[in-house]
Amino acid sequence: MVPHLVTALSGPINELEQRILESMPAIERWFRLEWMEHTPPFYCSVDVRNAGFKLAPVDTNLFPGGWNNLTPEMLPLAVQAAMAAIEKICPEARNLLVIPENHTRNTFYLANVLQLKRIFHMAGLNVRIGSINSEITEPTTIQLPTGESIVLEPVVRSQYRLGLKDFDPCTILLNNDLSAGPPGILEDLHEQYLLPPLHAGWSVRRKSRHFQSYEEVAKRFGKMLGIDPWLINPMFNKCGEIDFGEGAGMECLTENVDALLSKIRRKYKDYGINEKPFVIVKADNGTYGMGIMTVRDAKDLEQLSRRTRNKMAVVKDGQAVTDVIIQEGVQTYERMHDAVAEPVVYMMDRYVVGGFYRVHPERGIDENLNAPGAGFVPLAFAESTRLPQPGEKPGASAPNRFYMYGVIGRLAMLAASYELEATDPEAETYD
Amino acid sequence: MVPHLVTALSGPINELEQRILESMPAIERWFRLEWMEHTPPFYCSVDVRNAGFKLAPVDTNLFPGGWNNLTPEMLPLAVQAAMAAIEKICPEARNLLVIPENHTRNTFYLANVLQLKRIFHMAGLNVRIGSINSEITEPTTIQLPTGESIVLEPVVRSQYRLGLKDFDPCTILLNNDLSAGPPGILEDLHEQYLLPPLHAGWSVRRKSRHFQSYEEVAKRFGKMLGIDPWLINPMFNKCGEIDFGEGAGMECLTENVDALLSKIRRKYKDYGINEKPFVIVKADNGTYGMGIMTVRDAKDLEQLSRRTRNKMAVVKDGQAVTDVIIQEGVQTYERMHDAVAEPVVYMMDRYVVGGFYRVHPERGIDENLNAPGAGFVPLAFAESTRLPQPGEKPGASAPNRFYMYGVIGRLAMLAASYELEATDPEAETYD
Repeated sequence: MVPHLVTALSGPINELEQRILESMPAIERWFRLEWMEHTPPFYCSVDVRNAGFKLAPVDTNLFPGGWNNLTPEMLPLAVQAAMAAIEKICPEARNLLVIPENHTRNTFYLANVLQLKRIFHMAGLNVRIGSINSEITEPTTIQLPTGESIVLEPVVRSQYRLGLKDFDPCTILLNNDLSAGPPGILEDLHEQYLLPPLHAGWSVRRKSRHFQSYEEVAKRFGKMLGIDPWLINPMFNKCGEIDFGEGAGMECLTENVDALLSKIRRKYKDYGINEKPFVIVKADNGTYGMGIMTVRDAKDLEQLSRRTRNKMAVVKDGQAVTDVIIQEGVQTYERMHDAVAEPVVYMMDRYVVGGFYRVHPERGIDENLNAPGAGFVPLAFAESTRLPQPGEKPGASAPNRFYMYGVIGRLAMLAASYELEATDPEAETYD
Repeated sequence: MVPHLVTALSGPINELEQRILESMPAIERWFRLEWMEHTPPFYCSVDVRNAGFKLAPVDTNLFPGGWNNLTPEMLPLAVQAAMAAIEKICPEARNLLVIPENHTRNTFYLANVLQLKRIFHMAGLNVRIGSINSEITEPTTIQLPTGESIVLEPVVRSQYRLGLKDFDPCTILLNNDLSAGPPGILEDLHEQYLLPPLHAGWSVRRKSRHFQSYEEVAKRFGKMLGIDPWLINPMFNKCGEIDFGEGAGMECLTENVDALLSKIRRKYKDYGINEKPFVIVKADNGTYGMGIMTVRDAKDLEQLSRRTRNKMAVVKDGQAVTDVIIQEGVQTYERMHDAVAEPVVYMMDRYVVGGFYRVHPERGIDENLNAPGAGFVPLAFAESTRLPQPGEKPGASAPNRFYMYGVIGRLAMLAASYELEATDPEAETYD
């Protein structure tokens, strides 16, 4: 089931698709060379939006949930990619400890954890789930609506290692984005592989830092392909020292929103795009679709409702918001049964292993879809027709569109790799 | 569509399946460690036979054809594995030259070449087909019954490199088994990667050398798993200096057939197997299903027909047979619509990417199926249910049976890796 791309102006994206398809060997080689210099994040999911005239990533998740949304057809690809990842990082590993988010009642999330367990078991590891939730004090079995069950066990910390009772893993896979900062129990584990590393957590990550890297990646990729990088790059500004509760720092926000809207307007004019520009203001350390608002006019910021201010002031795990990123809004013109849809691309190691559409029947094309009420529809990614079909008319072939999404997803993953190198506290510096 | 396993005695294979499934993480780790020490052949297919009481590889092809028999569902796995292989061997490669067999009229074979071209194109290489057939003197387009067409181009040799007009590949993929010996045009290419290497060709390879390595692999694997390696290892002897035309060397053959039949009889007795043992006599350098006969009693060798002698005397490309391997026969008890079937497992780099059943309606369970009249039915390998299903009753789950076949296929691939190391003319020797 492939969403229909409903847009008057699809010329630019069809040209991009054609260019990407024709350049497939060059693109794949470009990625190969990049991965010789840079290490991909262990796993990753990327939200992509397709405006018909522009295609861009809008969020890159280094602790992806939602693996349970991938179809069974995609699992063999995920297992094969997991094997490749393990082989490179820790071929001698026997045991893998997965550290999930602290939710114990979100069975949808727990189904995701069970799917990860299944993937890494098939890839050849003994997998157990270690909770850092203080409520989990003994092995706890939770029944899922699917009929399956999952066992969460309390982690046990020794001086240098983390494990479970009678289970000493050589690798620890984080599926917890550490919004509240890494708990002490995860620090100074120098004898074990911790994947992704602690500085990939949201207490260190900043969206603006990621999109700065993405801009660099998009420029280099655009140059290689001979395209305007704007076609795949959402422009952005940022502001610090904001207090939404007190209304402090709003001048910076107003000015930057206004400036970015003007820049977008000029781009739209150059391309003959007859759309109303908008920006998305997001908490720079936000996740879980929290701390996000759509702004269509800088004046709107003067009259933010109390509800919106509250929503913007605090994100996951009660973290206060002081820094925001103001990002060029990219409409999503894909629709599934009248509901607005955006593709989410899943990657493991350097491989695209699948994806799905996030669909929200109550949201507009210029709004965040990662919100309660969203549904998930597997992409046709890994189905029989998934491989690109050279020679198809641009815009007419779903596999070709998905290949293009996979390229954009990998560009964002590469940006995350640049970002993690730049923020690595243990990086060697050459003064 | 999964063939039915029709056999009275399936206990041992069900135990083996259960053991293999329970030990999945240990098995995958064992392979990971092996691949740290040994390089997998670039690609490989393995014929497997399932006798219910025994499961064994009977032939390992290092220049696999038949890629066109894999279903579209399996292609993404093949592409991902090809990406992994290229990344390791030649990440900077732009161009790949495929050297096929010299047949220009076998459109079924050419469809296989086209499939390989597609896989490596998707993996990110510019792929062209260079023929070493002296009849191809200019670019030649051949129409296939599928409606597709393939272009064969004459290779161009310079002092150090091989290529096509205006096409300089940094990697050359052989899909030609070099039965007649490597042509001079392929020798001394020290600036280009030649995959697989020349000594993987049938002018150098010997089946007995391969099964010697396989025996070593099976013993080590059996020890790890705690099983009798005979359950997965076909015993063998060999004879040299045979002339089937003149009848020379037949005493050696008779003695060895008799000795091996006795050994099999003892094993059958130990396991309570009520079957008639048989051996397969094969040209030690044979391929394409040529030079193979089934022997049920050493006395039968005294009265070989002229036709059988002729068939055994010469194999592919007119190579005379002087050396034979006498291999324990493994019945195949799988059947598809009453026709005898044997699984063929396909691998790229270290990954199982798919497979199919070779089915022959006119052959018996103790005969070679690789013969004119054989048909091909894709295995359910890469379909949604492909991943093993822990907890299923042994013998009841097709995915579990295929996982077991994939393990056996990889053991044979590992044996090929040992074999190629032992026969590498450029290997460093430490005296």
